[in-house]
Amino acid sequence: MGVRERERPVGIFDSGVGGLTVTREVMRNIPEERIVYFGDTARVPYGSKSKETILRYSRQIVRFLLTQDVKAIVVACNTASAFALEEIRHELPVPIIGVVRPGAKVACAATKNNRIGVIGTKGTIASGLYTELIRQIKPDAEVIGKACPLFVPLVEEGMMKDTVTEEVARRYLAGLQEQDIDTLILGCTHYPLLRSMIGKIMGEGVTLVNPAYETACSLRTLLIQEGLQNTEPLAEGENPHRFYVSDAPESLIGFANSILPVNIENVQKINIEEY
Amino acid sequence: MGVRERERPVGIFDSGVGGLTVTREVMRNIPEERIVYFGDTARVPYGSKSKETILRYSRQIVRFLLTQDVKAIVVACNTASAFALEEIRHELPVPIIGVVRPGAKVACAATKNNRIGVIGTKGTIASGLYTELIRQIKPDAEVIGKACPLFVPLVEEGMMKDTVTEEVARRYLAGLQEQDIDTLILGCTHYPLLRSMIGKIMGEGVTLVNPAYETACSLRTLLIQEGLQNTEPLAEGENPHRFYVSDAPESLIGFANSILPVNIENVQKINIEEY
Repeated sequence: MGVRERERPVGIFDSGVGGLTVTREVMRNIPEERIVYFGDTARVPYGSKSKETILRYSRQIVRFLLTQDVKAIVVACNTASAFALEEIRHELPVPIIGVVRPGAKVACAATKNNRIGVIGTKGTIASGLYTELIRQIKPDAEVIGKACPLFVPLVEEGMMKDTVTEEVARRYLAGLQEQDIDTLILGCTHYPLLRSMIGKIMGEGVTLVNPAYETACSLRTLLIQEGLQNTEPLAEGENPHRFYVSDAPESLIGFANSILPVNIENVQKINIEEY
Repeated sequence: MGVRERERPVGIFDSGVGGLTVTREVMRNIPEERIVYFGDTARVPYGSKSKETILRYSRQIVRFLLTQDVKAIVVACNTASAFALEEIRHELPVPIIGVVRPGAKVACAATKNNRIGVIGTKGTIASGLYTELIRQIKPDAEVIGKACPLFVPLVEEGMMKDTVTEEVARRYLAGLQEQDIDTLILGCTHYPLLRSMIGKIMGEGVTLVNPAYETACSLRTLLIQEGLQNTEPLAEGENPHRFYVSDAPESLIGFANSILPVNIENVQKINIEEY
């Protein structure tokens, strides 16, 4: 592929702002890549919606990203990865990866006692997709899922280091501690922001797997394999990334500037239902 | 009007399951009325969406309810009451009422020091609609709004009497206590389920206004004025109410059976975008 092809951006999408944790890992680990981010803030959350609905929404977003000339797509949303990824993969002219498979792989490599915990939204846990992918790799693994619906609103209230959040986390995690897991997948985009608190509660004997980081590593591998990685460093002063939402741009700017390694100023609102 | 006309159901709609608190008050206070409930669970929440979008959604829902032969419509959603009610009122062959005006009216009657607090979602508080309606009635009233984004997820986790919820409520309400309000509007459909906790924190000097209850009273008055109230008691063993959602029927069933005075078994999913 020519230089022009390689310079095209990577598309990353999520149901809202949570996918910025994946964006952060991509920026840190493949800093030469341009990014087009879409957050479906008008229809967030996905965690409680049906497969059929998530599939329709994901198809609209992918159509929008293709109009932005992306060379690859990352589904940064666990629910969309669970419900839509395999079906839309075959409909696309560019490669697509989700956050679930990379997380499952690394958890299988990390566990010693074959007891893996997964925390996520109700939708992600009920879908059983982590369990399915883990069992494909390690058929005898025991996977214990736990939905933690309050973690997202607590993070979005900025209460990452709050005693209330710690109390909620202790309750959610108590069952997993009793189940003697040695590996825990942070199966929702917001959860890496609670990483240190969850680590403290679970103790040193439990390895935390951050699918956001693992997904960035998988993306790098994929781009190299397909000859799609950008080999030209980004120009000094270039504003290489673009951010889009379906509603309320200002809330994305605030969250982005609190976690990304670069400052963003412009977020454009689009009508995703037109795609 | 004939008996047949009066026996037609009342339509109630909300962005999701929260409007069931209004449904509960209608069942308690006008038990002879049949109800058709619609919860837009595929597009919940409305609080962060634009007026244009909410208006489009509300028109679709109203068209659906009219196919169910309703004799009157209650907008149980604060955001839709704020953004859509006045515009669609003129397009309808049946009367329609919202939850905001009944709550504002009663708060104005209750306050003695003219200092009224309003709690709600970010969208409701930012819209300033309660302030506007209160000032229409009492131009010198001081209205102090406070968004409480964690209340809805806490209620949906069933943590209505939990110490965590109490701690969160204490923090949200502290500023309102300092502002010396004597009346507090529970301006979100979920909040009446936290009524006793909020009452305990605010103390006896503060009157709590529950717009769900006031709306049921307004509905009864409206039906009587229009000669539309049902005068035949519902038959023993009749299943008089119907529930519809745009996604995930099971989540409505769970919530409904935890708060309604009757048990429901069937909730039908419809594609609201077709209306």
